Amino acid sequence: MFALFQLKFAIITPALITGSFAERVKFTSYLIFMCLFSLLIYCPLAHWTWHPDGFLRVWGVLDFAGGTVVHMSAGFAALAGAYVLGKRQDKQHHPANIPFIILGTGMLWFGWFGFNAGSALYANGLAVQAFATTNMASASAMITWVMFDALVGRKISAMGACIGAVVGLVAITPAAGFVNLGQSVFIGFVAAIVSNMAVYYKQQTSLDDTLDVFPCHGVGGIVGMILTAVFAKDAGLVYGHYETFKFHMLALLIVSVFTFGGSYVIFKITGWITNLRVSPEDERLGLDISQHSETLRTSAKIDLSTTS
Amino acid sequence: MFALFQLKFAIITPALITGSFAERVKFTSYLIFMCLFSLLIYCPLAHWTWHPDGFLRVWGVLDFAGGTVVHMSAGFAALAGAYVLGKRQDKQHHPANIPFIILGTGMLWFGWFGFNAGSALYANGLAVQAFATTNMASASAMITWVMFDALVGRKISAMGACIGAVVGLVAITPAAGFVNLGQSVFIGFVAAIVSNMAVYYKQQTSLDDTLDVFPCHGVGGIVGMILTAVFAKDAGLVYGHYETFKFHMLALLIVSVFTFGGSYVIFKITGWITNLRVSPEDERLGLDISQHSETLRTSAKIDLSTTS
Amino acid sequence: MFALFQLKFAIITPALITGSFAERVKFTSYLIFMCLFSLLIYCPLAHWTWHPDGFLRVWGVLDFAGGTVVHMSAGFAALAGAYVLGKRQDKQHHPANIPFIILGTGMLWFGWFGFNAGSALYANGLAVQAFATTNMASASAMITWVMFDALVGRKISAMGACIGAVVGLVAITPAAGFVNLGQSVFIGFVAAIVSNMAVYYKQQTSLDDTLDVFPCHGVGGIVGMILTAVFAKDAGLVYGHYETFKFHMLALLIVSVFTFGGSYVIFKITGWITNLRVSPEDERLGLDISQHSETLRTSAKIDLSTTS
Repeated sequence: MFALFQLKFAIITPALITGSFAERVKFTSYLIFMCLFSLLIYCPLAHWTWHPDGFLRVWGVLDFAGGTVVHMSAGFAALAGAYVLGKRQDKQHHPANIPFIILGTGMLWFGWFGFNAGSALYANGLAVQAFATTNMASASAMITWVMFDALVGRKISAMGACIGAVVGLVAITPAAGFVNLGQSVFIGFVAAIVSNMAVYYKQQTSLDDTLDVFPCHGVGGIVGMILTAVFAKDAGLVYGHYETFKFHMLALLIVSVFTFGGSYVIFKITGWITNLRVSPEDERLGLDISQHSETLRTSAKIDLSTTS
Repeated sequence: MFALFQLKFAIITPALITGSFAERVKFTSYLIFMCLFSLLIYCPLAHWTWHPDGFLRVWGVLDFAGGTVVHMSAGFAALAGAYVLGKRQDKQHHPANIPFIILGTGMLWFGWFGFNAGSALYANGLAVQAFATTNMASASAMITWVMFDALVGRKISAMGACIGAVVGLVAITPAAGFVNLGQSVFIGFVAAIVSNMAVYYKQQTSLDDTLDVFPCHGVGGIVGMILTAVFAKDAGLVYGHYETFKFHMLALLIVSVFTFGGSYVIFKITGWITNLRVSPEDERLGLDISQHSETLRTSAKIDLSTTS
Repeated sequence: MFALFQLKFAIITPALITGSFAERVKFTSYLIFMCLFSLLIYCPLAHWTWHPDGFLRVWGVLDFAGGTVVHMSAGFAALAGAYVLGKRQDKQHHPANIPFIILGTGMLWFGWFGFNAGSALYANGLAVQAFATTNMASASAMITWVMFDALVGRKISAMGACIGAVVGLVAITPAAGFVNLGQSVFIGFVAAIVSNMAVYYKQQTSLDDTLDVFPCHGVGGIVGMILTAVFAKDAGLVYGHYETFKFHMLALLIVSVFTFGGSYVIFKITGWITNLRVSPEDERLGLDISQHSETLRTSAKIDLSTTS
């Protein structure tokens, strides 16, 4: 059962990365990258962080439910992917279906309780604590995101609320079982503001991280990692312990370099084996059609109904 | 954990009310109303009903999982909201997406087991009883609703089945742990007929309760409250006890007046602070676009695919 | 609670059959068939297989979570339904909404853990074993399906991945608690290939099983039943036991004849009571509109937004 639980973490990490090079990657190269990433980046990182003999664990680096192992690593791999693959031809992107985004965020929020409270490994008080801090941080980040949007003159939107909620979930992930409710609200608040600024800063650059994986998961993971070292019970800065904070900063550096550099190398290797990108014509047509023959065409009957 | 469980009840109540004034309320005034309602209406009501010292609880008023506290209060607040805000310019309303409604009903039905069986507070026989009566009442109301539709000459529809199922869930909520399976079927049956008539009666009036919150949650909650007093084990009319029924009727009166009147006053206060409604032009344009800049526009690629 | 758990199995079986005659069956005749099928086919079959006195159980036939009782029976009833009702006028069928299919597959996969792990009846090691074999078989079948598609020259598609995953879930259902992880991978692999070939073979025939219920649930169920007899711990062929395999083959024959023949007779009886099919005009118009007055028409506001 523990293996199945760990499998869930291993599955989600490469899936997160996908968002950064959506709508231009070749399916074969995508599969190759995912296999190599899982074996060469994810597995060592999970071992270092969670195995009793892992050197980050021995250093006292805290990652309750995968903030570093899952989200920071996915964020840096996404950054490398967006960099290596280059821009889409048509960078403009409209959310296809806002009700789906809201539905997905709701299911994500709910499922995240499984990750964070489940990381207590028992149905005990620690699980309840992680459950509660997860909910508070997510709600806090959601409200902060839309309020920040409103403050800088953007319209409050459901999209913003959804992104904010996810950023809050990311940032509380490494800290969930180590902090109290007030601290979790603060973590969600800081993560939302930093991540919101990162998203809008990124739009000024030429980098095309399609679904903002780095500004959300990467930056959210970094914020979470730092604040875990600040607030963690019996180990954080606020309790007068400096060791944890020092090792967290060192780990942050190592993990960033390892995941970004490692992913960069894996993308390059994959590119030697096969083309990383689809052909320009296929990209113009859209990958659903050119790669998978799947359209959104509605049937004649439905067309008929729309005019009745 | 109990606090998180209670939070779930507190969250859902103002969310239910929203349906009555959809597509015309201003977002700011909506937020103000929700905060005031939660503090001034929901909290006292939950205290009166569920706290050992609450006067309704002392009277012996039974509300297993929030029929009175959640659904009846939301129904009456929705009625006040629809009344204060007035009609939409264009009262015509087409369900936007029936598969979403069916999906939502399924998730609601499933989640409701969490509310009703969870209200046993332990994984015991009482939880199973509440689980089973919840399912039976919902199924019974769903079948009754579509059969009643067919009887009065309307077409049987998936929409009707979904509304019927929700009405059954509302009506069994106060009774779930107190009645047996046969009684739960009867509760679903009565609630569906009364609520179905209320929905079609409401359409004759000028009241614009957009998503039928009062006829479904309000009326369903009233039916549930009355029938709980009729059937509750060791306390109901059918077991020869008159006290519970008497106090339930008195509570029904108090809760109706308190929630309708209180919500009415809160809407008025909110209206003094800020406009309750958006401008007529914004309403014509639709709130998704005018308030939140969110469209259902599909991207060029998808348009292309529909003609391929 | 056991009754509620069993109810879940009884509900899903007639629902599966529905797929084979979608878009042409009359709603009344559909309801009549479902009631008769549940009482006359499903109930005896469940009794024979799972009740300690059922003759299949006495023979030692193994069906951990409903491969025979649910999926094989639904498959054969679907075959009978497609045969009796005849073809649609317009056999062409486009998947209406691929995101919904992916969402549905995900919810199905998750819910299936409830069926298969739940069939252990306790939260014990057996439940974990069934959970793990279910996941492995589904993943194996999903990968096999898309790889097989690629091998024979079709494009890899999300639709194919979803169908493959479901076929794997079907095939592991009777075996989930009796096999190990390696065997579950093999079961998923074989089921995907056989079922994939069955789907494309069926397209050559004149039979119009709209949603491929027989090639997926029927064939997947048969493969699962046979391989359960091959691999089951302490009873399968590979452990040198021939009795179980012999009785499984005999049961396969009996269940096929009983469910196909029985469903055929019930369809004929239903056809005497009322028309099985809707009128040709109603079919041309689509059943959503002609039978249930439900359209996919989007409101004026949404139309407006699409041109802005």
